[in-house]
Amino acid sequence: MQNTPDQPVTSYTLITEGAPIAVNSHGGRAKCLQRLTRLNMPVPRTVALSFDCVRGIAQGQVPDAKDMLASFGDRPVVSVRPSSEDPDWGGPGAILNIGMNAARHKVMAEELGQEAADRLYTRFVQSYAVHVARLDPDEFEVDDSDSADALKRVLEAYEFECEEEFPQDPAHQLEEVLRSMARAWEGTTARLLRQAKGAPADAGLGLVVQEMIFGLGSGECGSGVIRFINPQTGHRQIEGRYKRQSQGRDALDGDAVFLQKDARGTSMEELCPKCYATLTGYGASLREKLREEMEVEFVVDNGELRILDAIRVQRTSPAAVRVAVDLANDKIIPREEALLRIEPRALTELLHRQVNPDAPRDVLLKGIAASPGAATGKIVFSATAAQASQARDEACILVRRETAPEDIRGMHAASAVLTERGGMSSHAAVIARGLGLPCIVGASDLKLKRKEKRLILPDGRELGEGDLITVDGSSGDVLDGAAELLEPTLEDGFRTLLTWAEDVSDIKVRANADTPADAEIARRFRARGIGLCRTEHMFFEHDRLTLMREMIFANSPDDRAAALDRLLPMQRADFKKLFEIMRGERVCIRLFDPPLHEFLPHTREGMRELAGALDLPLSDVERRVKALSEFNPMLGMRGVRLGITVPEIYDMQARAIFEAAAEVSAEGQAIIPEVMIPLVSAMREVEIVKARIDLVAAQVRAASGVEFDFRLGVMVETPRAALRAEEIAPHVSFLSFGTNDLTQMTYGLSRDDAGRFMSEYVRQEVYAEDPFHTLDTDGVGELLEIGAERARRSQPDVTLSICGEHGGNPESIAFCRQAGFDYVSCSPFRVPVAWLAGAHLALKDQIES
Amino acid sequence: MQNTPDQPVTSYTLITEGAPIAVNSHGGRAKCLQRLTRLNMPVPRTVALSFDCVRGIAQGQVPDAKDMLASFGDRPVVSVRPSSEDPDWGGPGAILNIGMNAARHKVMAEELGQEAADRLYTRFVQSYAVHVARLDPDEFEVDDSDSADALKRVLEAYEFECEEEFPQDPAHQLEEVLRSMARAWEGTTARLLRQAKGAPADAGLGLVVQEMIFGLGSGECGSGVIRFINPQTGHRQIEGRYKRQSQGRDALDGDAVFLQKDARGTSMEELCPKCYATLTGYGASLREKLREEMEVEFVVDNGELRILDAIRVQRTSPAAVRVAVDLANDKIIPREEALLRIEPRALTELLHRQVNPDAPRDVLLKGIAASPGAATGKIVFSATAAQASQARDEACILVRRETAPEDIRGMHAASAVLTERGGMSSHAAVIARGLGLPCIVGASDLKLKRKEKRLILPDGRELGEGDLITVDGSSGDVLDGAAELLEPTLEDGFRTLLTWAEDVSDIKVRANADTPADAEIARRFRARGIGLCRTEHMFFEHDRLTLMREMIFANSPDDRAAALDRLLPMQRADFKKLFEIMRGERVCIRLFDPPLHEFLPHTREGMRELAGALDLPLSDVERRVKALSEFNPMLGMRGVRLGITVPEIYDMQARAIFEAAAEVSAEGQAIIPEVMIPLVSAMREVEIVKARIDLVAAQVRAASGVEFDFRLGVMVETPRAALRAEEIAPHVSFLSFGTNDLTQMTYGLSRDDAGRFMSEYVRQEVYAEDPFHTLDTDGVGELLEIGAERARRSQPDVTLSICGEHGGNPESIAFCRQAGFDYVSCSPFRVPVAWLAGAHLALKDQIES
Repeated sequence: MQNTPDQPVTSYTLITEGAPIAVNSHGGRAKCLQRLTRLNMPVPRTVALSFDCVRGIAQGQVPDAKDMLASFGDRPVVSVRPSSEDPDWGGPGAILNIGMNAARHKVMAEELGQEAADRLYTRFVQSYAVHVARLDPDEFEVDDSDSADALKRVLEAYEFECEEEFPQDPAHQLEEVLRSMARAWEGTTARLLRQAKGAPADAGLGLVVQEMIFGLGSGECGSGVIRFINPQTGHRQIEGRYKRQSQGRDALDGDAVFLQKDARGTSMEELCPKCYATLTGYGASLREKLREEMEVEFVVDNGELRILDAIRVQRTSPAAVRVAVDLANDKIIPREEALLRIEPRALTELLHRQVNPDAPRDVLLKGIAASPGAATGKIVFSATAAQASQARDEACILVRRETAPEDIRGMHAASAVLTERGGMSSHAAVIARGLGLPCIVGASDLKLKRKEKRLILPDGRELGEGDLITVDGSSGDVLDGAAELLEPTLEDGFRTLLTWAEDVSDIKVRANADTPADAEIARRFRARGIGLCRTEHMFFEHDRLTLMREMIFANSPDDRAAALDRLLPMQRADFKKLFEIMRGERVCIRLFDPPLHEFLPHTREGMRELAGALDLPLSDVERRVKALSEFNPMLGMRGVRLGITVPEIYDMQARAIFEAAAEVSAEGQAIIPEVMIPLVSAMREVEIVKARIDLVAAQVRAASGVEFDFRLGVMVETPRAALRAEEIAPHVSFLSFGTNDLTQMTYGLSRDDAGRFMSEYVRQEVYAEDPFHTLDTDGVGELLEIGAERARRSQPDVTLSICGEHGGNPESIAFCRQAGFDYVSCSPFRVPVAWLAGAHLALKDQIES
Repeated sequence: MQNTPDQPVTSYTLITEGAPIAVNSHGGRAKCLQRLTRLNMPVPRTVALSFDCVRGIAQGQVPDAKDMLASFGDRPVVSVRPSSEDPDWGGPGAILNIGMNAARHKVMAEELGQEAADRLYTRFVQSYAVHVARLDPDEFEVDDSDSADALKRVLEAYEFECEEEFPQDPAHQLEEVLRSMARAWEGTTARLLRQAKGAPADAGLGLVVQEMIFGLGSGECGSGVIRFINPQTGHRQIEGRYKRQSQGRDALDGDAVFLQKDARGTSMEELCPKCYATLTGYGASLREKLREEMEVEFVVDNGELRILDAIRVQRTSPAAVRVAVDLANDKIIPREEALLRIEPRALTELLHRQVNPDAPRDVLLKGIAASPGAATGKIVFSATAAQASQARDEACILVRRETAPEDIRGMHAASAVLTERGGMSSHAAVIARGLGLPCIVGASDLKLKRKEKRLILPDGRELGEGDLITVDGSSGDVLDGAAELLEPTLEDGFRTLLTWAEDVSDIKVRANADTPADAEIARRFRARGIGLCRTEHMFFEHDRLTLMREMIFANSPDDRAAALDRLLPMQRADFKKLFEIMRGERVCIRLFDPPLHEFLPHTREGMRELAGALDLPLSDVERRVKALSEFNPMLGMRGVRLGITVPEIYDMQARAIFEAAAEVSAEGQAIIPEVMIPLVSAMREVEIVKARIDLVAAQVRAASGVEFDFRLGVMVETPRAALRAEEIAPHVSFLSFGTNDLTQMTYGLSRDDAGRFMSEYVRQEVYAEDPFHTLDTDGVGELLEIGAERARRSQPDVTLSICGEHGGNPESIAFCRQAGFDYVSCSPFRVPVAWLAGAHLALKDQIES
């Protein structure tokens, strides 16, 4: 058909080697079919309808179907398949056997046999009724689709519903199919679904009209699919199914045979050795020319192989990594492309065990998927029980209303965490992500009876301590019993990809790591040092907690110093271990941050115990606990405010850091520790703390005789610190933006309390996203930019970074890179994601420039 | 003496009518003496040393004293007095009788009598020893200064300490006096003291050298001071003392007589009627020509009056107001000058009762002076007891560890508040200032035994319920018993000044007023409307609190609405009363702000009561209370977050506001209420709330048939709201910056918890000032500027204001005026201060331009 100036664009094009077919005008399927044609594969005659053409159809300008069908010979029977720009965007389902009518049915019955003819016609009537005439699918359900009776029933059903005969004119049939597919694409649901997958508002749909090769009839006939990798692992192997006397993707449904000869019964290799050989022979060239691992749909028609279609193999993230790395290693695609083919977030899937998606799921409860991965274990209701469980080598799930810093050791001991309260940024969620522990929070449908050690499910069922559940932190589902789990596959491909990403990324990645175990993971994931080592958890271990409490209860600076003196060697050992593991990489240690009351017991029983331990009257303990309690601990006496008012704590920590550095340096591994002051809001805070820390450093240098170096920096967590960065920066070597607290203060929103309304807020689109999860570039981000720009103004060499939970998010990394930050620091388990996100950003910049 | 180019400037000038004497070169005293000379008053011969001259003396270039003394005749005896630019900046004390030595002593003994001669010489030796030779004052103490023995003793003491004879050369004496006074001015302490009073770093000192008129000897001799107003009230009346045979300011110390003839014994009027007549005759011309109320120092020398000096009368703030207004009313100074003569902060003194500064004080305890004024009452330890006390018409002082919103009614009932904890911005302090209630917070030396209803003082003394104390909120002193109090004097002068200030100020002032009582005060102090009416206190009254709790415990939106429906008429009545009082002035009502848990009981007993009232199991109440409790209430589920998630509350309030407005308008007093949304952090919050409020307004208009108007606005309390002002402003008519919360969030600092370290922080100059007390212009102020600038960018007509505690501070007002704000809103008791501060700023701009 020709376009004339008076007519809308409704062109269609026969797919040949040289036809003007492009992905952005005809869609991916049309282009792929042209490529297969160019590889001399036996593709049936196919016509491609462009996006413009389909858009015209939706508006009523249907091309002359008679004319189109003419190019398919005398008795055309065709299929129509969608061809959008990106196959992920979806599209209407394929419709086969268009052109079947009473006359052709009769002829087919003679040529292919009655049964085959009945099936072909029945199938078409079903599809047409449901997808074109939009009739109720139930009315067209048949069990025995290859019987004459089935055909009769569906034809009668059609006539009954539509009060007219099933359309017999093939051109009319095709026109109606095209129109219905074009309109389906314009439907609101379809549009929303594809936009959610990233399609632009004006994404077009192409269609391909292909001559039907039936796979039914006499001789060796059948259809199947083949792929050349295992979609779970990405390893290269021949996989697929073949089904005799079938068409479409029937082979995937029922009693098909395997392709390759092995012990599993008759194979296509045996049934049709010539076709099998040809088919498998296509593997290498498809991979090399299409630069992808493809799944091929084929038909054997009376012993002859035809290739109908090929699509990218759907695969797991580990498989995607392996395929991309293999293609790059085989020089089929450059490394850069391999990097760009993996979505950074997809890497998290590699790092955790997953519930087998194919296994049945008995979902007890749903909550917020706060930390990915899955684990099975017995329910425990307290940190102590979790530790006892660990001591017995029994996996356990810690179930709490919410977690608090005292629960950290319990969280370490548990395999997963489930909490009734809290959001993406609750204590449980943040710590679990840091530990790489599966975690579900905000499971508000459960009722926790802590004293009775029971939890009541929404359906009234109860679970008790010791009952087995599985927490799927990737989906937010709590499953009954031990669900089938898939192990993470951290293999060569992943490690190779990580190295490439690190080479390409122009923003560096560090890890937030508090413990030697964290540090080990950080190194494994190629973190360039530790960006945030929180020191407070170090005081929660039992013997230390007692000393800590003695320190808090000390009546004089001397008593306080005495308690701290006993903590010093423990801290020093902590830091030394970290320095040793990080082998010369930077380790940024945040000085003590939390309010002191976090270290005191809150229950009467705990206070009584403490009174005993400290040999004090209970009333004294109660009074002190009460005196230290705060209305808004987040905004209270913590961070540098403690450093100024109880300077002995920072003195001790600085000494521990420097002595550890001196020892490690003396052992031949030079280390430059970084000391970070938390919660700064005024320049003078930095001046005062800096003076004391410089003094401690000088003392340690003099006493040890080791000339170690160190860097002092500030954690920017208050809006004021960002606004005043210009006067703060000259006093320090680095500024690290703590985006968790900065978000809390910029919004006036406690992350511990936000859970109560955050879901409602996101639902009503008050906030586009939970700002604790996705960096709020408008508000918090502006403070980051202001801080960075002002700090650089007065101190061009200052190192800038972020070290909040946001550090591992690709969007935050993009923002920080744009703002000229030197590195991001995130949970060890997010480090690979961050490296890859950094690489993507660098590569995209190269492509655009 | 003449200056030559080689010599430093050491000029001195004889004060004559035409001599080149200026305040900024010779100081205020020199200038004043010249003015007295010009008024033909009998001023003894006086020489003025300029600032440059005195600076030269401090550096060693002392002018030739012999030369200077020559101008005082053959046997000169002189005094030296300081003459700084502003008398408030202090300066060295006067030294009299310079020139006395053995020879002159002998002559004087003949002329004036031995006793007089002894006294003159003794006095000089004492002054010289202490102030010039810097010897120990104790060594020169004598009881009988007019005895020959006393003279002998001081001369011997001098010789003993200095190992030399008392200097006999008058020129040498004068040189040493000048040098010592010049150097004293350069001392560090003197410098710091005057800089604290606002003196510039290079403030100069002038000196005046004056011929001594002795006031001793034969005939009527004596000295005295006179002033023409009462320094307490400012009312015009003759006051002063006269002492025969005395010099200097001796008349103020001991057994002097009054000036005017009355019943109090012999007066100067009787002793020396001619001098008295001359002296009192000077009153009018002094006032008119010097444009001030002056205190005059005079000597009667053998029946002849001499005027030695005149200084501005020290006066209380009420007196200052009266004098300024009187001078302006008498056209002696313009109104503008009258306004500028009153420090805005001084007005607070007028508005509260004060402890009589002259009465004895038995200080029990010291704390932070959190709200000015003084009150006496019986100690009570709970809000309930305070209310009971009020019911009995007994003044009481509420003593608490700290106050919480539940205590508000108790605070209303009390005469003053004293708390153990908290700082300038604690709940108690803020509310007390709002109520104009004397308040001391952070009295951390007291031990409160609430259960036993006792408080233990630092010295171990105990006080119990019912014991009488006086709280001096202006000084921070807690006094024993009923101290003598001075009533505030809110007289005509004050009211006149306020009117003038309002006329001149180009930034408007509103009041933060929650109750009809507040609103009445606001109107009395000429507030141009209410800038912040907090509505939450309205829910704490007993019947309302129960309904509020029912609302919180409601299981469905319908139940919730039912409870709110019963609150509606009460709120409507509240608003109607406010609208009526404000008679057409704008009333800005902040929608409900605090977290709901503030309305629930915290004790087990309270919960049990509530369970009874709501007919619910105790466990349900406990569970709900626990579920609503928050880690950081300041950053939690409050403000607009409640408006979004529990919209029924705002619906009810909007309805109450609009129905009240419609009723008042229908009664003929059109009112345009302003509705303010608190704690906004995102534009969508405003959109959502606005839509509902517009709907309520439409419903009320339809139902009432009254076409009232209203304005919607946003309270900017989060840094993010300031940063996003450009997108928020187009949706609203006004933005009001809540600087209390904005400060909390900008610093990451809870005002309730800051008390624990704020004093330490200010002491170490980490913060220059408590940012809750003085607006932090660097950090919080920048957010104000950013917010204002961006809001005006998108909505040039938007009204801008601040409504935090800072609204009444002159510095904050200056800042807001500079940033282009339309008004400030502050506690009713700060409104006069704010008006005057605004007037000062406008006048200073006029002067500078």
